[in-house]
Amino acid sequence: MKRNLLLISNSTNAGEEYLGWPRQYIKSFLDETTAKRVLFIPYAGVNLSDKGLTASFDAYEARVKAVFAELGYDLYSIHREADAVQAVKDAEAIAVGGGNTFHLVYMMHKMKVMDAIRERVLEGLPYMGWSAGSNVACPTLRTTNDMPIIEPESFNCLNVIPFQINPHYLDANPEGHGGETREQRINEFLVVNPDIYVAGLREACLFRVQGNTIKHIGSRNLRMFRDGEETKEFNSSDDIQFLLN
Amino acid sequence: MKRNLLLISNSTNAGEEYLGWPRQYIKSFLDETTAKRVLFIPYAGVNLSDKGLTASFDAYEARVKAVFAELGYDLYSIHREADAVQAVKDAEAIAVGGGNTFHLVYMMHKMKVMDAIRERVLEGLPYMGWSAGSNVACPTLRTTNDMPIIEPESFNCLNVIPFQINPHYLDANPEGHGGETREQRINEFLVVNPDIYVAGLREACLFRVQGNTIKHIGSRNLRMFRDGEETKEFNSSDDIQFLLN
Repeated sequence: MKRNLLLISNSTNAGEEYLGWPRQYIKSFLDETTAKRVLFIPYAGVNLSDKGLTASFDAYEARVKAVFAELGYDLYSIHREADAVQAVKDAEAIAVGGGNTFHLVYMMHKMKVMDAIRERVLEGLPYMGWSAGSNVACPTLRTTNDMPIIEPESFNCLNVIPFQINPHYLDANPEGHGGETREQRINEFLVVNPDIYVAGLREACLFRVQGNTIKHIGSRNLRMFRDGEETKEFNSSDDIQFLLN
Repeated sequence: MKRNLLLISNSTNAGEEYLGWPRQYIKSFLDETTAKRVLFIPYAGVNLSDKGLTASFDAYEARVKAVFAELGYDLYSIHREADAVQAVKDAEAIAVGGGNTFHLVYMMHKMKVMDAIRERVLEGLPYMGWSAGSNVACPTLRTTNDMPIIEPESFNCLNVIPFQINPHYLDANPEGHGGETREQRINEFLVVNPDIYVAGLREACLFRVQGNTIKHIGSRNLRMFRDGEETKEFNSSDDIQFLLN
């Protein structure tokens, strides 16, 4: 399998500039490819403008384009392309931005690009995503934290990795809050999905997948969940190859 | 319309006993009816036991039954009934417990009780729910905070009130966390659902709906969201009748 993936937990750490911390990883990821231009998928970004969805996608593209330009890459958004499927077929690399995972998946099905992207990623097209864009690389959207603001045709996603990511993984609720913790939510997931790993990917962390190898990069631990197994923490030097089996 | 609803944000405040704070409201709600027995819907409770779903529903029933017995009411769970739809037809009152909203809605569609409950509630069957059980009274599940651990047949819910509740509404993220705040998530909802109110129902608060009147009860304010309108706070003495129009 030729997949070449950069799966980032979050675009921005609290108090830092937009796409600040992952910038160096995005640059070295792209520098190792032959890509000069990056096709951007803005569908998760629904409220970057108060003038509606198209204006929001425009604003999202401008925001990300500025960062990629600094890194030496041209970025253009799929929402301006006359034929979205053809744009995927012609892409040199793909970046999928965060926001609302349900809206992202809704649009990817609606625009018929889910299968087209999957096919190209399995052939080796460089793919990077953050937050919702990492979730959508998984078999389904079932471990998102997002609000289900719109009903997608299906929960099925790109399925270019065989495990689920929970991005923005965090350990505690705000003090005094009685809602379920993230760990409780993931344990609910395992009850009805016993045969799949869930990776709690903390902020400022990412996965780098090249073919059949996977690395976790970040100063925080990865937290791994699976039904019937003890929940475990892995640091970035630990072997996590089992995730791809 | 004869509806008679008690829609509770959360079962339990942090550090308090199970179903502690809403107990007095559940008792006076039931005392005003002729019901002696309450049909319980446990489908949101997926991990109260490590022995599987049925054991989890058993454990959930036992937990809630003990509280209702103290209040003088017998409670029995739908998962033990041979014919779930018939059980709804025969019910004197219904209580829908919290947990995972997606699993609740999945099961309600699967067991064909969504329409049966709606029909009886619109005829005046006393209905109470907390957390997921309040969400499911809304038109859809689109304002839940829960993880989409399973794909329901549809996002459609009971639709016995014309607005969306966001239960466990909270204002801030844990410090240093970069994920979206609840307000940001609800604002995303409004972009794609501009014609509906979302009520941020804070913990230790509830709605009491009787026919065409609605009251918000609780020491915290209600936070109301609608596309194109300023987000507003309402205290429990404010008129919120517009929510039912």
